[in-house]
Amino acid sequence: MPASDPPDVDLEPEGLELGDFTAVIPAGGMGTRLWPLSRASSPKFLHDLTGQGRSLLQATVDRLTPLAADRVMVVTGARHADAVREQLPELSPSNLLVEPAPRDSMPAIGLAAAVLERRDPDAVLGSFAADHVIGDLDVFADRVRQAVLAARQGSLVTLGIRPTYPATGFGYIRTGEPRHVPGARDVLHVEAFVEKPGAEEAAAYVESGDYLWNAGMFVVRAKVLLDLLGRNHPDMVRTLREIAASPRRIDQLWGSLTKIAIDHAVAEPAAAAGAVAVVPAPFSWDDVGDFASLATLLAESQDHPGVRVLGDASLVVAEDSTGVVAAHGGRTVVTLGVDDVVVVDTPDALLVTSRERCQDVKGVVAALQRLGREDLT
Amino acid sequence: MPASDPPDVDLEPEGLELGDFTAVIPAGGMGTRLWPLSRASSPKFLHDLTGQGRSLLQATVDRLTPLAADRVMVVTGARHADAVREQLPELSPSNLLVEPAPRDSMPAIGLAAAVLERRDPDAVLGSFAADHVIGDLDVFADRVRQAVLAARQGSLVTLGIRPTYPATGFGYIRTGEPRHVPGARDVLHVEAFVEKPGAEEAAAYVESGDYLWNAGMFVVRAKVLLDLLGRNHPDMVRTLREIAASPRRIDQLWGSLTKIAIDHAVAEPAAAAGAVAVVPAPFSWDDVGDFASLATLLAESQDHPGVRVLGDASLVVAEDSTGVVAAHGGRTVVTLGVDDVVVVDTPDALLVTSRERCQDVKGVVAALQRLGREDLT
Repeated sequence: MPASDPPDVDLEPEGLELGDFTAVIPAGGMGTRLWPLSRASSPKFLHDLTGQGRSLLQATVDRLTPLAADRVMVVTGARHADAVREQLPELSPSNLLVEPAPRDSMPAIGLAAAVLERRDPDAVLGSFAADHVIGDLDVFADRVRQAVLAARQGSLVTLGIRPTYPATGFGYIRTGEPRHVPGARDVLHVEAFVEKPGAEEAAAYVESGDYLWNAGMFVVRAKVLLDLLGRNHPDMVRTLREIAASPRRIDQLWGSLTKIAIDHAVAEPAAAAGAVAVVPAPFSWDDVGDFASLATLLAESQDHPGVRVLGDASLVVAEDSTGVVAAHGGRTVVTLGVDDVVVVDTPDALLVTSRERCQDVKGVVAALQRLGREDLT
Repeated sequence: MPASDPPDVDLEPEGLELGDFTAVIPAGGMGTRLWPLSRASSPKFLHDLTGQGRSLLQATVDRLTPLAADRVMVVTGARHADAVREQLPELSPSNLLVEPAPRDSMPAIGLAAAVLERRDPDAVLGSFAADHVIGDLDVFADRVRQAVLAARQGSLVTLGIRPTYPATGFGYIRTGEPRHVPGARDVLHVEAFVEKPGAEEAAAYVESGDYLWNAGMFVVRAKVLLDLLGRNHPDMVRTLREIAASPRRIDQLWGSLTKIAIDHAVAEPAAAAGAVAVVPAPFSWDDVGDFASLATLLAESQDHPGVRVLGDASLVVAEDSTGVVAAHGGRTVVTLGVDDVVVVDTPDALLVTSRERCQDVKGVVAALQRLGREDLT
């Protein structure tokens, strides 16, 4: 990699590959607010939520392959391993790590780090959720490349999304002074990770220009990540290295790992210690957290302006309506005179709500569980 | 029947039967505004729309049997004859008249009149739509009895519903002076049938106290009906009597009959000639014209106040919602934060609309037909 500044965008694919870089994709999380499309048995990342013909997981792999070639690693739960193999036939078995049970993001990414460290003591890993949607792929590639350059210097590096509105549903990253990283002109010091703010705080954050959204994307040397983790969770690091050395012991050892997110286990304490850098990432990004979010990713129906359709558009007849219709039940869906409606049709469950109540779909799933209808969740 | 005034209500069933009276039930009309529950292939009258376990047709027969015993006659289209036989196993084959093609209400009722006239020259028929909902059954029975007494005198008698609001969706009956009919104290002269009014007119009608809703219920001697019809449609009367005499000729002759409603063919001209009487009918009546109307017939869900459920209530989960849910698709239906919503779930089609747009469901059916989706209508 040359030390002089490379162009921001339009890098040729062959120029993108980073020989020491492995993309790690934690494929977990149910996506509760996308029920009934997303289920515990068939979570969000396995679905094509953009109508592009690829699941979110597949699109994530597609996005990282130009950077990492075949060094793409997926970490998923035992329940979803078969579905992941089916969706990613090109994934080598050694690059699919299967968690016996969910333990949140730290054990998942930590296991990948421990496995990679054994393969290459200098390996840099980049962790990217399996269920986000990202546009501007050459900008994405350039910012990952910059993050890799910074990570090689020993930092924990995150990619922070330039806020487009004062979101209260995401954590933020408070940025500091520029960091000098040869070949990477956008790297900043991270002052702190901050929790999801209230509306006023969020507005002030966006106004200040000093805050980025925390999208949970981390780039770091495998060994550095484990060392940072070891500061507060030395037992976890030891266990993860044992599993990496003796993969067959995972069933025996996995249960002892603390359930904790990488943000809490590593990123926040490391930021407090001044060890985190960020690359502001001006590409479009969406965590597809709910149907309102999903709606923004879909084009308006040609036949029915104002309505965005996911699934088979020929099944949808929308008269005087606006909103989102997911037609996944194989049946005709007719809306008449309803605005900002969300209709999600699946073979065994139907949801009718509004854009503004999308956030509360989580509560519906909880209600179904209380009613003993786990079969639907 | 005694000449003195009988009690209004609480007649014993054995006191209700009227030996010369036959109930005629024209079972036609698709109920387009109840799509997708109601279809051309499975129209409204075949459905249990009140959740009582009986279809509207069955409930109509149930309501008339105490008055007419086994003299209940159903006139339906060839397409629905099997379904009618299945729903009414007690109906004798001679009391099921099958129309080769729909010709509106006059030929249907006229055929019943011609058949009855041959059985009993003095027969009185009462025609009652198969797809209306009526409450206060002893009041209903008393008013039919009064209508029969008036019909025996040679009048065309209608039952007019006391308006409960200034409806613009029904025609009205302008009432006149009382008619003296021994044993029937409520009979009035009919001055005119008037078309569906505008909102202002409707309000004035209701205000005046002189108007009743025309619910299409007629009680008349079979011979009188045919004579009245013969004034303007002598050919139709001749053809109907030919069919009654030679039922096998129906396929050959039916196509020549004019498609016309009994209101236009007989009731309006007869009223203009002073030959119509009306019995005001203070029982509850609903033509179940659309889902808003249907909603008023259903009890609120015990689990979900504000929501009225048709179908399997255990399939419905309504959070912060009001409206109507018809759960006929066998799937769980969840509504979240939607008000005055109408959700109608069936195995092959789903409708989401609002109470105030229920009237426009008809347009959806037309749109589906334009789209070549007759299979759904």
